[in-house]
Amino acid sequence: MRKKRVLSGMQASGKLHLGNLVGALENWKAMQEEYECFYFIADWHALSTNYEDTGEIASNRFEIAVDWLATGIDPEKSIIFVQSQIPEHAVLHLFLSMIVPVPWLERNPTYKEKMDNIKNKDLATYGFLGYPVLQAADIALYKADLVPVGMDQLPHLELTRELVRRFNNIYKCKVLKEPDAKIAQVSKLKGTDGRKMSKSYNNAIFLGDERKTIEKKIKGMLTDTKRARRDDPGEPDDCNLFPLHTIYTSSEEREEICKGCRSAGIGCGDCKATLLKNLLPALEPIQEKRRELLEQPKKIEEILSAGSKKAQKVAAATLDEVKTAMKIA
Amino acid sequence: MRKKRVLSGMQASGKLHLGNLVGALENWKAMQEEYECFYFIADWHALSTNYEDTGEIASNRFEIAVDWLATGIDPEKSIIFVQSQIPEHAVLHLFLSMIVPVPWLERNPTYKEKMDNIKNKDLATYGFLGYPVLQAADIALYKADLVPVGMDQLPHLELTRELVRRFNNIYKCKVLKEPDAKIAQVSKLKGTDGRKMSKSYNNAIFLGDERKTIEKKIKGMLTDTKRARRDDPGEPDDCNLFPLHTIYTSSEEREEICKGCRSAGIGCGDCKATLLKNLLPALEPIQEKRRELLEQPKKIEEILSAGSKKAQKVAAATLDEVKTAMKIA
Repeated sequence: MRKKRVLSGMQASGKLHLGNLVGALENWKAMQEEYECFYFIADWHALSTNYEDTGEIASNRFEIAVDWLATGIDPEKSIIFVQSQIPEHAVLHLFLSMIVPVPWLERNPTYKEKMDNIKNKDLATYGFLGYPVLQAADIALYKADLVPVGMDQLPHLELTRELVRRFNNIYKCKVLKEPDAKIAQVSKLKGTDGRKMSKSYNNAIFLGDERKTIEKKIKGMLTDTKRARRDDPGEPDDCNLFPLHTIYTSSEEREEICKGCRSAGIGCGDCKATLLKNLLPALEPIQEKRRELLEQPKKIEEILSAGSKKAQKVAAATLDEVKTAMKIA
Repeated sequence: MRKKRVLSGMQASGKLHLGNLVGALENWKAMQEEYECFYFIADWHALSTNYEDTGEIASNRFEIAVDWLATGIDPEKSIIFVQSQIPEHAVLHLFLSMIVPVPWLERNPTYKEKMDNIKNKDLATYGFLGYPVLQAADIALYKADLVPVGMDQLPHLELTRELVRRFNNIYKCKVLKEPDAKIAQVSKLKGTDGRKMSKSYNNAIFLGDERKTIEKKIKGMLTDTKRARRDDPGEPDDCNLFPLHTIYTSSEEREEICKGCRSAGIGCGDCKATLLKNLLPALEPIQEKRRELLEQPKKIEEILSAGSKKAQKVAAATLDEVKTAMKIA
């Protein structure tokens, strides 16, 4: 039986942080063993929210590849590719644009939310409105069986599914594959300020941060804000640091910490020291691999180029089928 | 001094008629002598107004090529190519989509007019809204100096010009070229029912119509509707047939006709017979060439394929410059 195919991507909009590692990459790494995985750097998508400030897209593309490889995303096991190296994405995007009703895009919750919340960037563009069409093309080109998504991305995937059904229905074919959501059970890490960890909030701990930087960020991290003084007892469930312990600290040690926190037996500084003791060695292999890879930019380019060639074969074959179904071959 | 470059295209939405011949092709043919001409079959554009009924796009593409070649559009002089053979159109379309404000598209007069007038097709699609973006990509890829347009297409070209300026402005470059309009002084032919000749009105005389069909269509054509009886005098300036005389009938003979019409000396039947006497021999060489070409489908494909290869070189070079300017190469 053939392995199911997984597709996932990340926007080339910045270097990766612990939230990406825990929320996506660890999951991607695990899926490599069970599935045929296609992982891509969505550098064209980065244009949709930031067409003016494109100066870092190329370096972000490189950094993301380094972070992926350092984490254990393995080009021998998975196809790692770059969206912009495969013009078929733009062609299928154009075809799908012809059949997608504008209201489907206008009612997309992410669209509405971003339009309401992001005020410092121009999002009133045709391309930003069509973001989910490009995303649907990305997925449909590879006939992905599964797309790992967080709950918040479900509406996007639903739009892809609707668009795939609409295509197959209009052109009376079964060329495109409706992907299923693979909902990842992952922890959402908090950033140093207690909000969701995100590079746009400037509260993230990056995979590439130096040891000293990580120590400084962890030591300055907001914990349980109700625990104002060392003598007050705290509550790990309300603590921004604690999700990191659930990943990097053993359950025995975690139990001790909880007891100590709730009884004010230990202070936040102690708790942070324990985290650093566990976190830093866990990150060390990734960071060492990162340092090695950063010195081999040519190798990185070769890996991306080889992966993109493999991906393009699949994409071109799908596009041929699409054109035949549309009778425009 | 290098020749100025002209770019023009036609949608692959049906075979060509006398209105296309007189309104565009004769002009295209003449421009070949003075300019470097790029003429393309816009088969992807045909999707934007008719994504459901694509069954004839491939045959229309072939018929249009036959009609062009039969008219004297010459692959030795001009680059004749097919949009869908050049994925760069889709890629530049995607890039431009990122920078075009949605309101620019919504206020496009052709968009509003078609949305109001065409009720039997679904135009509420993202692709139809973005039609001018694809058009801008078509033009910008070839750095056209001039685009021949009718007055009614000026707003479309203006949008291309605005988009080119916006691109160069955002990316601080001069990569894209703002095309100038070349307003063609051409007669608008009337169809057999007195409305503008158009295949969608079912009132057109096609280049491929048989002699008998043309005779029948001309004989049934509405003339000066105020001239109810043979004995009534008529007015050539109000006659739907007369524009055809201005093209196919000599000025001496035309003067006679005008006199005869205004004095009721001749009837509409006489006038139509004179037109047929002049029109049919004028069309004959085109029709003969058409018949020859129709029997050489392979040759047509080769011409289109060779032209598309030449065009793609130009398009790919522009797209490389575009990517460099956008810093996403």
